[in-house]
Amino acid sequence: MSSTALSSYTNSNAPVLRVGLVGLGTVGAAVARQLLSPSGRFHHFSRGRLQLVAVSARNKPLHGVREDGLDVSSCRWFDSPEKLATDPDIDIVVELIGGAEGTAKRVVEAALTAGKHVITANKALIARHGVALAAKAEEKGVTLAFEAAVCGGIPVIKGLKEGLSANEIVEIHGVLNGTCNFILSRMRSDKMSLEEALSLAQYKGYAEADPSADIDGADSAHKLALLTAIAFGVAPALDSVLVEGIRHLSLADVLFAEQLGYRIKLLGVARKITHQQADYIEQQVYPCLVPASAQIAAAEGANNAMVAESSLAGRMLWMGQGAGGDVTASAVLADLVDVACGRHIFAFGMPVSQLKEVQTPPMAVQRGAWYLRLTVRDQPGVIADVSAAFGQENVSLRSVWQHSPPNSEAESQSDMVPVVFITAETTESAIHAAMKTIEALPVILEKPCLLRIEKF
Amino acid sequence: MSSTALSSYTNSNAPVLRVGLVGLGTVGAAVARQLLSPSGRFHHFSRGRLQLVAVSARNKPLHGVREDGLDVSSCRWFDSPEKLATDPDIDIVVELIGGAEGTAKRVVEAALTAGKHVITANKALIARHGVALAAKAEEKGVTLAFEAAVCGGIPVIKGLKEGLSANEIVEIHGVLNGTCNFILSRMRSDKMSLEEALSLAQYKGYAEADPSADIDGADSAHKLALLTAIAFGVAPALDSVLVEGIRHLSLADVLFAEQLGYRIKLLGVARKITHQQADYIEQQVYPCLVPASAQIAAAEGANNAMVAESSLAGRMLWMGQGAGGDVTASAVLADLVDVACGRHIFAFGMPVSQLKEVQTPPMAVQRGAWYLRLTVRDQPGVIADVSAAFGQENVSLRSVWQHSPPNSEAESQSDMVPVVFITAETTESAIHAAMKTIEALPVILEKPCLLRIEKF
Repeated sequence: MSSTALSSYTNSNAPVLRVGLVGLGTVGAAVARQLLSPSGRFHHFSRGRLQLVAVSARNKPLHGVREDGLDVSSCRWFDSPEKLATDPDIDIVVELIGGAEGTAKRVVEAALTAGKHVITANKALIARHGVALAAKAEEKGVTLAFEAAVCGGIPVIKGLKEGLSANEIVEIHGVLNGTCNFILSRMRSDKMSLEEALSLAQYKGYAEADPSADIDGADSAHKLALLTAIAFGVAPALDSVLVEGIRHLSLADVLFAEQLGYRIKLLGVARKITHQQADYIEQQVYPCLVPASAQIAAAEGANNAMVAESSLAGRMLWMGQGAGGDVTASAVLADLVDVACGRHIFAFGMPVSQLKEVQTPPMAVQRGAWYLRLTVRDQPGVIADVSAAFGQENVSLRSVWQHSPPNSEAESQSDMVPVVFITAETTESAIHAAMKTIEALPVILEKPCLLRIEKF
Repeated sequence: MSSTALSSYTNSNAPVLRVGLVGLGTVGAAVARQLLSPSGRFHHFSRGRLQLVAVSARNKPLHGVREDGLDVSSCRWFDSPEKLATDPDIDIVVELIGGAEGTAKRVVEAALTAGKHVITANKALIARHGVALAAKAEEKGVTLAFEAAVCGGIPVIKGLKEGLSANEIVEIHGVLNGTCNFILSRMRSDKMSLEEALSLAQYKGYAEADPSADIDGADSAHKLALLTAIAFGVAPALDSVLVEGIRHLSLADVLFAEQLGYRIKLLGVARKITHQQADYIEQQVYPCLVPASAQIAAAEGANNAMVAESSLAGRMLWMGQGAGGDVTASAVLADLVDVACGRHIFAFGMPVSQLKEVQTPPMAVQRGAWYLRLTVRDQPGVIADVSAAFGQENVSLRSVWQHSPPNSEAESQSDMVPVVFITAETTESAIHAAMKTIEALPVILEKPCLLRIEKF
């Protein structure tokens, strides 16, 4: 019988762990509220072993009580988050500032160096510096956990690290950004333009005033780099993620896709590709067409979802809310409960010394089918010219459509018409070669919209 | 810093745990195969700490090698599973025999009493004797884990115990039986009768020759009792689960439901009901109508799924394969990895002394809307009579339909017609009172089909 069992699991005299919280934004405040009045399941599951003893944030509340009623007067206040991170009377530091560099990084580094457990929701920090931080945590024998960094309250990191620990992961794909998913869902359901749907997202608080990080894909890329690391046993490789956002999509694409039996989703996709006995990991964030019947298509609105294809358990879906104060706090608190109960696991599931480097596959081995919408001058020969360009690169066509998108405004009076091409499966290099020729055709009036079609 | 961290987490010299496996059916053989050749993620995540050293099963393979190639010749063979359970050179016993009583119970009791960790897929055993077994595990400071008992490879128990540990759970509902879900999915997609779909399920190996445990709901009830215990912090109360199977459903119901925008699913549902300051837990297994857009409706075919409504993280869905050798082995192996890495947790998430007793709500406080299909003599006044019976109990009607089901065989030539009533929300006691009157009406020609409508 393992001796560790007795000490960490049934010992009701285990010490209380003193928590220091850095950052009192929406998530930080929600975490503080639960820690200050632990009740019900949280109280039982954490076994009363978590105590919030220290707080640091940008604005110190007068007499320790904020305008929204949050009362942190029982906690020590630190003007300097770095000082909190090294205080000897703190066992766990919760970092909820955000950002890959600066204060957040200094706080996490200092806390780990001082032998404290660290829980964070900081995807950028872990995607950029995760390996060094995880190595420090290992050296000190403490936990570095970041469930809240990906998919809000959905325990996908736990699912990959622990639930599927016996499985080889073949592929993961996920709706990792609720803002984009809200926008794409509303474009389809309400026939909105991307700009209208974005405004609505901003009005509802789902999108920032500057929505670039969401709609250009960077947020999804950070999350995908973390999931890829855990799923495939590699060091996070943010710079290897090919990123394409949703800015260039039009309502026409969303409606064409729907008519073809698909949904357009911004996905983070990572898959293992073996080619000539070499293993590659493809990591991409892109808007693509997925069958309306695919599991991932069920994620609508601001929801997040992740699908894992695994060797034993097969295909598995997690779906839920990906953002919000309480939602994200749920994940932070779950990490805290694990530490309180002595359930430790390596940041990426295994020691950093065992993490491999991501090998990105050459374009010639990445395969897929494609959707191409062109806006062309309405004259004979256009389809022939485009088809010839595909043929030259040995790209087969599955179908060609030339008409206005379904349910759109009345047929355009101009001589500009959309033409949609669906290709058979081909290589990434072939499609890009064909596109070079196509984009140079004089009949092409606007920038083409080229989207992958995923089978799933 | 907690001292347990260093010992259980980064210590690469932690001892190998010796596994004894009881039962070599589909799941047992799959578990054995992985343990005998641990590779890739499983090897890394278990840190090489798991070793299969002993096996017991009904049929001893000649020279330790089975006809299917499984080679257990490196393991000690026990004709008596009870002897394996108490052998001093075994640290973890994996019980994959099944059944609430008899050998399985004796093996698990003996192993726990001898201070060994126990991993099992035995839903009946845990639903019946889980509290006593969990108490024994606590006393001995060992793990009793049963992820594989519910939803096959989907880590729903881990999700509820660890992923949502900071949340109050308000409701869970799940497609917990893949056989029934396969049957209901095929009735809808292929317009099959229940009998035809059942035959197909049997042909494909999804259903036993005697399918009673699946289609009459007992299998779902066992699983629901376990999930309820973990979600609500109560002792499993199998006898408090109200169980209704799918045997009485007809294709007409499936098609009517579809036309109304619903799917029929056999669900296990547990929810907290507070009435006059008393807390109740309602636990029911029943076929019901769920909106086609509901998350749970996405579970099609032999899939399993579970939705949890939680206080912080909101609504969350897990979906995946619920049965099969490798699929279930994935969950058994994940439990083994947790033990190997020193990650222990109480069988029901908290000490058994803290588990409450389930209080079943009186019928008068359980509310819901209903679908009622009657087969009546085609004569004037039928709808008036039935409506009057509902009115007497203050049950409001939302709609009434009198015609043959959509897409069914040509309109019946007989004078028997189906009539479908959809009620507004009402109490369970009111609907049952109304049904008493309705069933006594002379125009009712067949046993009525009464189904709940869930909103979700």
